[in-house]
Amino acid sequence: MTAAAVTNGDVSTGKSAPAPVPGRFASVYSEVQRNRLDHSLSLPRVLHSNFKVVDGPGSSAAGHPDEIAKLFPCLFGQPSSMLVPSDSAAEGSDQKLRIGVVLSGGQAPGGHNVICGIFDYLQARAKGSTIYGFRGGPAGIMKCKYVELTSDYVYPYRNQGGFDMICSGRDKIETPEQFKQAEETVRKLDLDGLVVIGGDDSNTNACLLAENFRIKNIKTRVIGCPKTIDGDLKSKEVPMSFGFDTACKIYAEMIGNVMTDARSTGKYYHFVRLMGRAASHITLECALQTHPNISLIGEEVYAKKLTLKNVTDYIVEIICKRAALGYNYGVILIPEGLIDFIPEVQKLIAELNEILAHEVVDEAGLWKNKLTNQSKELFEFLPSAIREQLMLERDPHGNVQVAKIETEKMLSQMVETELEKRKQEGVYKGQFSGQSHFFGYEGRCGLPTNFDATYCYSLGYAAAALLQYGKTGLISSVANLAAPVEEWTVGGTALTALMDVERRHGKFKPVIKKAMVELEGAPFKKFASLRDEWAIKNRYISPGPIQFLGPTSNAVNHTLLLECGIQTS
Amino acid sequence: MTAAAVTNGDVSTGKSAPAPVPGRFASVYSEVQRNRLDHSLSLPRVLHSNFKVVDGPGSSAAGHPDEIAKLFPCLFGQPSSMLVPSDSAAEGSDQKLRIGVVLSGGQAPGGHNVICGIFDYLQARAKGSTIYGFRGGPAGIMKCKYVELTSDYVYPYRNQGGFDMICSGRDKIETPEQFKQAEETVRKLDLDGLVVIGGDDSNTNACLLAENFRIKNIKTRVIGCPKTIDGDLKSKEVPMSFGFDTACKIYAEMIGNVMTDARSTGKYYHFVRLMGRAASHITLECALQTHPNISLIGEEVYAKKLTLKNVTDYIVEIICKRAALGYNYGVILIPEGLIDFIPEVQKLIAELNEILAHEVVDEAGLWKNKLTNQSKELFEFLPSAIREQLMLERDPHGNVQVAKIETEKMLSQMVETELEKRKQEGVYKGQFSGQSHFFGYEGRCGLPTNFDATYCYSLGYAAAALLQYGKTGLISSVANLAAPVEEWTVGGTALTALMDVERRHGKFKPVIKKAMVELEGAPFKKFASLRDEWAIKNRYISPGPIQFLGPTSNAVNHTLLLECGIQTS
Repeated sequence: MTAAAVTNGDVSTGKSAPAPVPGRFASVYSEVQRNRLDHSLSLPRVLHSNFKVVDGPGSSAAGHPDEIAKLFPCLFGQPSSMLVPSDSAAEGSDQKLRIGVVLSGGQAPGGHNVICGIFDYLQARAKGSTIYGFRGGPAGIMKCKYVELTSDYVYPYRNQGGFDMICSGRDKIETPEQFKQAEETVRKLDLDGLVVIGGDDSNTNACLLAENFRIKNIKTRVIGCPKTIDGDLKSKEVPMSFGFDTACKIYAEMIGNVMTDARSTGKYYHFVRLMGRAASHITLECALQTHPNISLIGEEVYAKKLTLKNVTDYIVEIICKRAALGYNYGVILIPEGLIDFIPEVQKLIAELNEILAHEVVDEAGLWKNKLTNQSKELFEFLPSAIREQLMLERDPHGNVQVAKIETEKMLSQMVETELEKRKQEGVYKGQFSGQSHFFGYEGRCGLPTNFDATYCYSLGYAAAALLQYGKTGLISSVANLAAPVEEWTVGGTALTALMDVERRHGKFKPVIKKAMVELEGAPFKKFASLRDEWAIKNRYISPGPIQFLGPTSNAVNHTLLLECGIQTS
Repeated sequence: MTAAAVTNGDVSTGKSAPAPVPGRFASVYSEVQRNRLDHSLSLPRVLHSNFKVVDGPGSSAAGHPDEIAKLFPCLFGQPSSMLVPSDSAAEGSDQKLRIGVVLSGGQAPGGHNVICGIFDYLQARAKGSTIYGFRGGPAGIMKCKYVELTSDYVYPYRNQGGFDMICSGRDKIETPEQFKQAEETVRKLDLDGLVVIGGDDSNTNACLLAENFRIKNIKTRVIGCPKTIDGDLKSKEVPMSFGFDTACKIYAEMIGNVMTDARSTGKYYHFVRLMGRAASHITLECALQTHPNISLIGEEVYAKKLTLKNVTDYIVEIICKRAALGYNYGVILIPEGLIDFIPEVQKLIAELNEILAHEVVDEAGLWKNKLTNQSKELFEFLPSAIREQLMLERDPHGNVQVAKIETEKMLSQMVETELEKRKQEGVYKGQFSGQSHFFGYEGRCGLPTNFDATYCYSLGYAAAALLQYGKTGLISSVANLAAPVEEWTVGGTALTALMDVERRHGKFKPVIKKAMVELEGAPFKKFASLRDEWAIKNRYISPGPIQFLGPTSNAVNHTLLLECGIQTS
């Protein structure tokens, strides 16, 4: 049932025919990829020898504990766990386990290493265990599409980027029917445990599965793992989601290169939009790594209730100051989620969605009178190309596709228009030429940094250990990450402790709240204390390409260090 | 006159006020940058000890030798030179030299190392020499804007990307007045030699300067250096321009990441446009490094007289075949210069330039009747966004800005339209979703690879040696590059030997012909022999980030190796 399952399976989208053999076996490797295969990974000291799992105090929820208690009657309040050294081997460590693993949502560097960590743990500490990889994300669980992971199968993915070992998917296990399918699968495969590697939504889903299995008296335990390049899944006990470190370093390499180009060429303003969904963690981290002239942080724009005009003016004023100093170049970082933070833009888009669903758009533009005055003014203020995008790029439901709006071009054009005006008025005498960039997909599937490779491997080890000790409804948490690997702590945090509720369609839904950039947090405060200097003086840093060997290969990102209270340079 | 010159100078654009101190001194370095500063560079064996310069046979020209002879009465026919081991030190090696150096044109990784090579050569073999860096490109020569390069000044740029040590510029020394300014500068600074680091145009200019100084009996000798990421400045004796190796590896890193993402995600076609001007060397090299499903090579499109419709159909057919195999994803490389190679597009643009200069563009579109039938048809075939770009994005002379046309988006949209049609016809049953990328500025200023760092250093050494031996009108040429550095050969090639003439405004103008991709050359033939397999089967390779240490840090690009007759994997 294993090799056959692969050929029947559903590799990537959960929809169409499969690749007959796993991609990697048909593939050739670059020298660097090949070299990474045998890169040896350190483990935290507690995983070197015998340990036991110790429970902490009972937990609550991130908000609305009463509602969370109702939604998770079995799991609510359970303690987080910690691995600590022990004199003897684990009780039941001679038992073979049957474990499933699934990758959920967008790619993040290091996912393969989580799976390798689970695999190696079972090989080392529960010999004879079986591990199944569900193919194409949660859909693989529902459709029982899986592959048995063997030593040979896993090897080509060690320390490699991508999720293609078993691929991922964005389906959710939500309806009673879908929960039933999941139950059938775990029963059929007789699973002791399931590891869900995903972001906030997927980990919420993992907890619902854990609760459901517990209620139904199904033995399968569920452990989550914190994955997302966006860096918005974190808490006190889960210091960082994996993939963030690598993605930021890839973007920072490119930003550094563009900065050096800007300074050398002396005539371009580079507007760089960075992936990262709503939260601006990636932009903030890249700013700390590279020192651009301007970085917009969505959370600050929101807190200060800035309009698009305010944002444009902020950029324009720095450009004018720089021009007076003889600098007609610069680098500006823009988080992907910026416009989600500008209320007037949200309002315009909502109105457009409403109008375009019901009205005919007349050539003469009379339809615009349906907009409120504020929205009409904003619409007229936008560059024509962006107006076109708002009118034309619509999803199947007729809604504006916000993610497709090229904010970097929009801002570049708005800045250019404003600078023209100031030139006419005689207050700006510089030259402006904008170049726009979007750094996104390049960062999701790079080879994981040494940090992410090691961190993910420990997360996998931790997940397997927690399953072996009978734990469920926890998220694998490896902490003390600013210290040497040996000193990292290993445990599991109660998923319900990370949750709050949101009201949707008249019902409470559990959600792990996205961790946004804290304006009182150390990373933002450091940025805020330096940005005026970076704006005017050129303090550009070029991080260069990620190194896997030598003295520069083990650097950790600024966000993590600063949040641990460690100053960075 | 040196420190003062810096503060008066004209750092980057040759137009506006300067940075008061060189950028690097005010800057902070990343760990990798700092580490690279002290990276030690090997030199070819012939440069380890005493050598002499031996002349080869007299030379001719790449074409129209009679015309080249008329244009270069002093220099035409001069031999190329080679450095060979010698028992004694160079004659005159106790003489101090006064050397100027200038960076010309677009940035390319390694430029700083050429200057370091010249500097170190003079320190080692002509103690007490003086070296001036002209600021902001050839304009710095004409305006006598320079800085004296000292050990402290040069150090922060060792093995670093960018051209910001002295910056570059795109001005040319062309008119009699400009030649006169150049003469005044070299006389004022009493220069023995001038090194021009640039591409084809700049090296042509270097040769004209050399000829002019010789005619006027000015002692200043001129040596060129082959710089361009585009890889289109090469000949039998000059195997490769510097910067190509690094730029291709940076782009290939990103392409590899996007490929892994494509395979993992399973639902996107990535259309990647790559910098590189007219020639498709960068696209070809990146294809050899990464094995994309489709790579368009401009020179082939031209040779086969393909239309835009042909190109679209070629892509569409591969996408249909892949869909039938269950692959709804892929990666497509597009050279920046593609549309320069499609005659019908050139014709349309020429007609548009003509019409839009003289006609009123009426709303009803009657102006289109001025287009020839073929051009009108093509215009209607283009996606609306591209039609807008053609109509609106015009340079100050009113001409269409071809470089600003986002060919990757254009092709993605045209492919989507054609696939829709085939879906209606029932011959295509897949899902298509395009993502477009432009990789350009990211590649011009990265930290140079070990290859480029070493190669550039040798080029600089060679240039200084040739000047010391009284040579002029040569381009520094370091060859046998597929062998270990010790075995590299070092010499200078007669610039006139690389030249042909072009007729412009009724006059013959000397030009170093751009080296285009040879359809009979080894790199293209290897690509052509494998591309059908890459199209259908997924042979993706992810080269990963450039490494500076360890076993993967000294790889050389495929183009170079294949052109040296060495097979690559």
